[in-house]
Amino acid sequence: MLASNPDHFYAVIPAGGAGSRLWPLSRAGRPKFLRDIAGTGATLLRSTWDRLVPLTGEDHIMVVTGDAHANEVRAQLPELGEHNIVLESEGRDSTVAIGLAAAILERRHPGAVVGSFAADHLISAGGRFRRAVREAVRAADEGHIVTIGIQPIAPSTAFGYIRAGEPLEIHGAPSARLVDEFVEKPNEGTARRYVASGEYLWNAGMFIAKTQRLLDELAENAPELAAGINEIADAWDTPERADVVSRVWPGLEKIAIDYTVAEPAAKKGALAVIPGFFGWDDVGDFASVSRVHQAANVCDHEVQVIGERERVVSTGATGIVISETERVVAVAGVNNIIVVDTEDALLVTDRANAQRVKEIVNLLKESAHPEVL
Amino acid sequence: MLASNPDHFYAVIPAGGAGSRLWPLSRAGRPKFLRDIAGTGATLLRSTWDRLVPLTGEDHIMVVTGDAHANEVRAQLPELGEHNIVLESEGRDSTVAIGLAAAILERRHPGAVVGSFAADHLISAGGRFRRAVREAVRAADEGHIVTIGIQPIAPSTAFGYIRAGEPLEIHGAPSARLVDEFVEKPNEGTARRYVASGEYLWNAGMFIAKTQRLLDELAENAPELAAGINEIADAWDTPERADVVSRVWPGLEKIAIDYTVAEPAAKKGALAVIPGFFGWDDVGDFASVSRVHQAANVCDHEVQVIGERERVVSTGATGIVISETERVVAVAGVNNIIVVDTEDALLVTDRANAQRVKEIVNLLKESAHPEVL
Repeated sequence: MLASNPDHFYAVIPAGGAGSRLWPLSRAGRPKFLRDIAGTGATLLRSTWDRLVPLTGEDHIMVVTGDAHANEVRAQLPELGEHNIVLESEGRDSTVAIGLAAAILERRHPGAVVGSFAADHLISAGGRFRRAVREAVRAADEGHIVTIGIQPIAPSTAFGYIRAGEPLEIHGAPSARLVDEFVEKPNEGTARRYVASGEYLWNAGMFIAKTQRLLDELAENAPELAAGINEIADAWDTPERADVVSRVWPGLEKIAIDYTVAEPAAKKGALAVIPGFFGWDDVGDFASVSRVHQAANVCDHEVQVIGERERVVSTGATGIVISETERVVAVAGVNNIIVVDTEDALLVTDRANAQRVKEIVNLLKESAHPEVL
Repeated sequence: MLASNPDHFYAVIPAGGAGSRLWPLSRAGRPKFLRDIAGTGATLLRSTWDRLVPLTGEDHIMVVTGDAHANEVRAQLPELGEHNIVLESEGRDSTVAIGLAAAILERRHPGAVVGSFAADHLISAGGRFRRAVREAVRAADEGHIVTIGIQPIAPSTAFGYIRAGEPLEIHGAPSARLVDEFVEKPNEGTARRYVASGEYLWNAGMFIAKTQRLLDELAENAPELAAGINEIADAWDTPERADVVSRVWPGLEKIAIDYTVAEPAAKKGALAVIPGFFGWDDVGDFASVSRVHQAANVCDHEVQVIGERERVVSTGATGIVISETERVVAVAGVNNIIVVDTEDALLVTDRANAQRVKEIVNLLKESAHPEVL
């Protein structure tokens, strides 16, 4: 049972977000998910697709992305059918992205289970990932809203955590447990306690549920937004799509699905979690890129290099150099440095300050050179 | 007397040295002295020339440089007469550069006083500089070999020091004192004691003497080298120059004039020093560039910028960005950082490690990309 793929399961890939903490690699016009940001040889979007296809087949994956990225998405995923692309004129956060996909799928395939998987996360050990997803689909079949929480490998302060509760004892989903609560990014001491306790998992933002179950939960917690989403979904596969979208879209609330579905469900004991024992990273900043790259064991030099290694020289330095240019990059005597060298923009920071790249992006918006964003 | 310029005084500018600790600004093909390395608006060579002309006139300055740099030197100093250029097929260090110039000048202008002034140092307060040189020429007239030592403004560990001894009471050179000894670059504690004592000056490598006095001292301490230099000088203004140079040059010893003239003279009490109360820096590494730039008070931002300020953004960072490209440079949360951004090479280091740039240059020599040196 666990080994076969459930044929009522559909994956949704919300492919949005500028990844501003990854500037200048990630740009408004070519964001993080369209880039091979971790130097694996494939873009994050393509890797996500390749990871899901063995679970769902090519026709059961829907991609939600911005108009501006449509052509690049089509180019990276030539197997993606046009009916499985949901284009947004303007980003409306994850409730709309996932909720609309679920509402469209519910109309096309009543009784479907939908799972959402970010386009810009990195996952290793795909077999374990798929095993966790199959368990999650089973738990969803039983009426649960389900998330996959990542077994932490370190007391990270960069991620939110999920406290796992009682085992649910679902046939075919033996590791499913209730979610007791979601907790925000902790400080380091708290993170250590969480990891030591064995009860906490990283919140990777993966949600799996029957489409109708998800929409019901949404209707309960955000009725206006749910109504708007359903109105668009009703028109989606009809000639009225464009009219309805242009009328309803501007009024849709921008809010993360964590607040409209996951956390309210957890509060009433309706959220299940499947612990995931695979490598996972949200590749949220350059410290994360460095971590991911290191984990991939690509580098045994003192300075990690993403790019042409022969053009990077270093002495007494540690950190990461990401090079997209033909230039020689030399690093001397600095530790945990992060150097990102692109044709029209250069970033220098270090691991401890990797999150401040967002401040740089904000400064650039007001600067004389917003064109590099 | 002090206000007028002595018309038997000739300046020599040895313009050599790759400035490898200033890579990638300074390159083999376009070394430090040919660059506006401190962002003053003039190259170091041109600034040196402009500083000396009021003392000597245009025809009393001789430039010693490598064949490879001849055209750039001519372009930067169009007033420099061809008879005042000494071209070296291969660098032979400062004894040959200064000694040969002195020997040529002695033959052309017997009784001349010669002063050597590096092409790649930065000096502010030119009036005080010229006053010190005029005192030095007076002391040289009295038969002394003379150096100008810089009044230290900080306990620098980057420079050698000169311990000043008894006042010499020379008419027209009231501040002249004997040199007791030269001391190598000290550690910080020693440097503090030196500066607190008031008896120590920075060794700026400026030497002034009668040409014959200098050549006699050289002959005493390095007789073979002196003979070679004199042989070339004898042939210099004759048709035999090329023949003699090609025969003698390869055998000339590479040695600094500190060891062949200055230190031996100091040991026997024949070296005088004029304290210099002007701003001086050897611009030896990027920490020095940063210091010089800061002293010029060009910048009140957290990150100093040499280049187009509008293209540099920073947050919570200190240090210096030197930009020669059209790219945006962003620096976040790093302190005392040094970023040098050029078309084909990028350097990232910090002030404490500025000297390690030499290691980078050595690594590049063995690398796949020596062309950026």
